[in-house]
Amino acid sequence: MPSKQRNTTATVLKLLDERGTFWMFDCGEATQHQILHTTLKPRKLEKLFITHLHGDHIYGLPGLLGSRSFLGGDEPLTIYGPVGIKAWIELTLATSKTHIKYALNIIEIEEGIIFEDDQFIVEARLLEHVIPCFGYKVMQKSLPPELFIEKTDALGVPRGPLLRQLKEGHNVELADGRIVRSAQVTGEPKDGFQVTILGDTKFCENSILLSKGSDIVVHEGTFDQETADLAGLYGHSTIVDAANVCKKAEAKHLIVNHISSRFMPSDIKGMIAQVEHYEFPIYVAHDFAEYDWANGQLKKIPSE
Amino acid sequence: MPSKQRNTTATVLKLLDERGTFWMFDCGEATQHQILHTTLKPRKLEKLFITHLHGDHIYGLPGLLGSRSFLGGDEPLTIYGPVGIKAWIELTLATSKTHIKYALNIIEIEEGIIFEDDQFIVEARLLEHVIPCFGYKVMQKSLPPELFIEKTDALGVPRGPLLRQLKEGHNVELADGRIVRSAQVTGEPKDGFQVTILGDTKFCENSILLSKGSDIVVHEGTFDQETADLAGLYGHSTIVDAANVCKKAEAKHLIVNHISSRFMPSDIKGMIAQVEHYEFPIYVAHDFAEYDWANGQLKKIPSE
Repeated sequence: MPSKQRNTTATVLKLLDERGTFWMFDCGEATQHQILHTTLKPRKLEKLFITHLHGDHIYGLPGLLGSRSFLGGDEPLTIYGPVGIKAWIELTLATSKTHIKYALNIIEIEEGIIFEDDQFIVEARLLEHVIPCFGYKVMQKSLPPELFIEKTDALGVPRGPLLRQLKEGHNVELADGRIVRSAQVTGEPKDGFQVTILGDTKFCENSILLSKGSDIVVHEGTFDQETADLAGLYGHSTIVDAANVCKKAEAKHLIVNHISSRFMPSDIKGMIAQVEHYEFPIYVAHDFAEYDWANGQLKKIPSE
Repeated sequence: MPSKQRNTTATVLKLLDERGTFWMFDCGEATQHQILHTTLKPRKLEKLFITHLHGDHIYGLPGLLGSRSFLGGDEPLTIYGPVGIKAWIELTLATSKTHIKYALNIIEIEEGIIFEDDQFIVEARLLEHVIPCFGYKVMQKSLPPELFIEKTDALGVPRGPLLRQLKEGHNVELADGRIVRSAQVTGEPKDGFQVTILGDTKFCENSILLSKGSDIVVHEGTFDQETADLAGLYGHSTIVDAANVCKKAEAKHLIVNHISSRFMPSDIKGMIAQVEHYEFPIYVAHDFAEYDWANGQLKKIPSE
């Protein structure tokens, strides 16, 4: 349920540099209203991953789908989610006579690799909630190594298509017959980032498996240690559960979201105190909180 | 579509004095979020009238229904709306596993009297929009006349059940055999109020018929005179159309809502100027605008 302090759930993964788009995970009621207060353009939404079908995670979908069309979105949009999402979206759009001008693909998923292209792999696993709920791991593939242009210049490689071949790992022959090896003029391939975004769940093995080695884990922390009995009752986690998943998975950074509306902003300090002995950075996300990933480091972008 | 200035549509008729409840007309996305910023309690929502099934009028329904239950609402709730509303609400609640703890009645209506009890009558008529759209007229029944207690005292009527009979129009016999007539000790019966709340529509005869003699008409004014061609194209009205309906219906006050997001708050003055020659009060509603009806007068309650 929304409160004055916090809206229902939606998490955005900005991939503007990588693909010129953003991906979204869950879409609670009034997500499109929140977007109005950001720099996000609905037409740049490329993929939408739904963790589970509870209302606070999906009721914003139909409105956002309609507005994306109204605002000129014409690129295809793919929605991934549990069985049931397709019939609901289709009946909702039909009932409200919403005519969408872009190709909408709705894929009801099972566990496993649900998406792969030349840049990214997305894996889904079932978590443990009161209804079926997925977590998603987004893995960026290794990035091409850096090409040292001063070395190719020194070797007399002409600017042009040969440089691209070298960057992509191929050896090339110059006009004078000399062979230049890719390894001579490039650095190490760079690992891509890995971010795991989990849905509502209690502490479970699949959260750990999915989070294994992730640079960033986004894990719910609906409750804290004092309210741990409620977490058990409703299939949710405490902030300590979230930290333990991250620790066992040897993940590098943790962002905790989905804080219960029973906690006031002034309570957050106390929640963080419960996990301050963990050796990796832990952030508790507020609405509109934004984090930047660069050079292997996660940094919170200062809010306005 | 919502903007930073205006949310999607929902109109509330507060009947706290009359029935201890409020009624709502349409329920666009994030209506429950707006309610958080008012004194309204979702558990006091008794009836919800849907004019038509476009998303900006219904996408807030499932969230509000769920939150009403979560917040302890246990009195029955009745929803009236066009064919299609029932299947959509039922699939939405089933898909999201929303268990509602109160009796939810969903009535798919046709034109005519759709509700009557000892206090109110509600009549619905079809308007002219791009999809079926209803307007609703809420008619309060005549109120019992005032009982003049100084007159009953002077006549020696004992305080107690006889007073109630006199107030309800019955003549009574005192212990000493004298007859006291109701008309001797009561004033005139008071007319109830009539408010007509119309959905999206172009100028049409049924708007006038429904609004006939209303104390208050709530009519959309999506466009203004300069954009009248768009109104025609999309089945909407201009503010002048709304005023003409009110004039032909000899209604007493007009509230214009559903202003297109193309108009900035600074444009409203210009819209009002287009109808300032009409001889009844005309208000253009902004989000959270509240009006008080007392002694045959409509007054805007100053915003905070």
